[in-house]
Amino acid sequence: MIEYRNLRIALLGAGAVGAQVASLLLEHGEELASRVGAGLELVGVAVRDLDAPRSTGIPRELLTTDARSLILGADIVIELMGGIEPAREYLMLALNSGADVITANKALLATHGPELFEEAEQVGAQLYYEAAVGGAIPIIRPLRDSLAGDRVHRILGIVNGTTNYILDRMDLEGDSLEEALAAATELGYAEADPTADIEGYDAAQKAAILASLAFHTTVPLDLVHREGITSITREQVRSARRAGFVVKLLAVCERLTDPETGIEGVSARVHPALVPETHPLAAVHGANNAVFLEAEAAGSLMFYGAGAGGIQTASAVLGDVVSAARRHVIGGPGVAESTHADLPILPISSVVTRYQITLEVLDRPGVLAQIATLFSEHGVSVEAVTQSVGPEAGHARTEATATLVIGTHQATEGALADTVATLGASDVVTRVTSVLRVEGTQQ
Amino acid sequence: MIEYRNLRIALLGAGAVGAQVASLLLEHGEELASRVGAGLELVGVAVRDLDAPRSTGIPRELLTTDARSLILGADIVIELMGGIEPAREYLMLALNSGADVITANKALLATHGPELFEEAEQVGAQLYYEAAVGGAIPIIRPLRDSLAGDRVHRILGIVNGTTNYILDRMDLEGDSLEEALAAATELGYAEADPTADIEGYDAAQKAAILASLAFHTTVPLDLVHREGITSITREQVRSARRAGFVVKLLAVCERLTDPETGIEGVSARVHPALVPETHPLAAVHGANNAVFLEAEAAGSLMFYGAGAGGIQTASAVLGDVVSAARRHVIGGPGVAESTHADLPILPISSVVTRYQITLEVLDRPGVLAQIATLFSEHGVSVEAVTQSVGPEAGHARTEATATLVIGTHQATEGALADTVATLGASDVVTRVTSVLRVEGTQQ
Repeated sequence: MIEYRNLRIALLGAGAVGAQVASLLLEHGEELASRVGAGLELVGVAVRDLDAPRSTGIPRELLTTDARSLILGADIVIELMGGIEPAREYLMLALNSGADVITANKALLATHGPELFEEAEQVGAQLYYEAAVGGAIPIIRPLRDSLAGDRVHRILGIVNGTTNYILDRMDLEGDSLEEALAAATELGYAEADPTADIEGYDAAQKAAILASLAFHTTVPLDLVHREGITSITREQVRSARRAGFVVKLLAVCERLTDPETGIEGVSARVHPALVPETHPLAAVHGANNAVFLEAEAAGSLMFYGAGAGGIQTASAVLGDVVSAARRHVIGGPGVAESTHADLPILPISSVVTRYQITLEVLDRPGVLAQIATLFSEHGVSVEAVTQSVGPEAGHARTEATATLVIGTHQATEGALADTVATLGASDVVTRVTSVLRVEGTQQ
Repeated sequence: MIEYRNLRIALLGAGAVGAQVASLLLEHGEELASRVGAGLELVGVAVRDLDAPRSTGIPRELLTTDARSLILGADIVIELMGGIEPAREYLMLALNSGADVITANKALLATHGPELFEEAEQVGAQLYYEAAVGGAIPIIRPLRDSLAGDRVHRILGIVNGTTNYILDRMDLEGDSLEEALAAATELGYAEADPTADIEGYDAAQKAAILASLAFHTTVPLDLVHREGITSITREQVRSARRAGFVVKLLAVCERLTDPETGIEGVSARVHPALVPETHPLAAVHGANNAVFLEAEAAGSLMFYGAGAGGIQTASAVLGDVVSAARRHVIGGPGVAESTHADLPILPISSVVTRYQITLEVLDRPGVLAQIATLFSEHGVSVEAVTQSVGPEAGHARTEATATLVIGTHQATEGALADTVATLGASDVVTRVTSVLRVEGTQQ
């Protein structure tokens, strides 16, 4: 056993995760000390209001409103406040004072990551953030370390538990979006204002973090294409299942070559997608998360687990605490964030994928041929067409119409968008019911 | 970019994995150098016979039969020879000379791990072995680092691709064990002598490694209870599926308390088990591997991917190369293996789990009651009994018999073994057809 002075740990924030981190530090102190080779002493917990009602079990004498003094006396600072300010300011202060920093703050990392990583590198401190993506699922460390000698091609992630719960419920229970959201709210999976989840903002932050790490390239949040699940209908989910797919909100991070310009770059996007029922991601139910990735040598890997929850996220934070503490005990500057590849970020129009388009068309001879021609004129190759009589349930039938479900081969987003625009203007198409990307098939 | 001299890498072994590692090092040299901050120079590949036929693409001038000189001139030594000697001797030599060592040699680690780890700790070198378990799947690093602040309760691992392929084929195609093994051999999943796989030796080595790491306790290979799949029949697999289970060869590593002595300890065992169809492990098909683990705070996690294959295993080795190389560039002694907990290793008789027993019994009134009494006399509580007329297919029916499938609540291995012995001796039981443990249910 290495003899070493106690390490002083400051905790910023005493919410659901913070309370669990504090209790794990206090309860497992001895076990953690033997793993680290030094005692881990929780020296204080910064909160905004000492008298706010909380049932956290954190000893009252550890609470303080003076975050700055707490930070300046700490070896390791854990930030679990959330939000941009003052979290950013506190982390810069901590790094500046030479402390290692642990954060679960995805919003902060997705917007101010580069600034924080640069500061850490300059002062030789470490910034850990395993808990920022996928809750307890180890994904940051495998990407950073285990796959460091490999080349990641693509990440397909279910990184938001709330929307996965909603879509899973729409699939399994036949709920409407509103019904499933109400259930998610009741169970505490969705917040009172669910915008960040259902509009894909939370997933986009995680996509920016994953893509930056996987491709050694800073991927700014505002270059992540984002579509939420608010337009997904019960009919889409049902019709997907009939065709052998499930609807998932995916974070897709890819290394790709723009087919027109030939520019090699990376892309990150968040949108609902059809995933084949046989794909491992299709079996991710409830509020669980999973990150499926394809690497040149490793092939396909998947990491699965609880994506959120105070105690689960606390596990990831504690793993980072042990890493940071070991670095203090054994020395060494650790691993710097790597953005050496610095690849161009390609827009969504560069993306090439498969699509499923559902149309309501006039039920007349020659319409199918007309539609097929329209696709081929835009360079979009049709793989399969299913025709059924009558419009999808829930829509008034004004004239004799038929429903076409068209699966395409790979096409660019640009070509697809042009096709859909032309479809919308066509006088034989009465309605473009649904346009969904298809991911996770053999390309 | 940090300026640093080239790091000298020695490779021992030029088999399927070795050839891929060499080619990744040679082809991705520049990219790896930017990730590490120093060039990675493959200075030689030790082989037994320079003239052995090989189609590896390793430049002839890198080959040498003088492993010792190669090792003594290297910063990082990668051992991919397999077997115990001379691999052990070479790794001790490498560690002694101050080199960091990377190995995928599970047999060596499971038998001589403690000796190697101790040597590494004494000289301040590192021993990496991500490729030893689960091929490309990052499992060693998440266990060692990500979960370092958590407490692992149980690991259920599908860690042998060959047996998973065989059992999956018996399930999906209705093959017999012999047919499925023949198919596995033809596809190159099984070796000419399949003993190490089908008798569970390979899985037991991995169980010893995983249990040692997860529980911070040296778990010697000879204390891992081991049963292979050679007695698994097509009928067992079929009858499991009817009851909502799949048969998997599992490595089960648990923290447990012996119910009789009250001793807290750990246990590692490898045996075929029934896994509920709804469990994530049930969806692991073909030669894939997966490690499902339950931790106190993190909850359930699963890591999934290709468990073997030259290129996949090479990815894990390269990840370790980058870690080792970074340590050279940035300094610091890295992370020592931790066996601080040093828990007792409990025998299989301490294990408590659920069972499914299939019996052929005389079809007479009162037999069911007689059997039920026999279970309860041994302290084994029956959860469910299914009775069907006639023996299982393939067995001659000599008298009026019925088949009983009995599911138990949790019971100790000892109580179960006593029960089965008494069943075997009972004059109403004509045959004990199958006794299988049930894992992965809510306990």
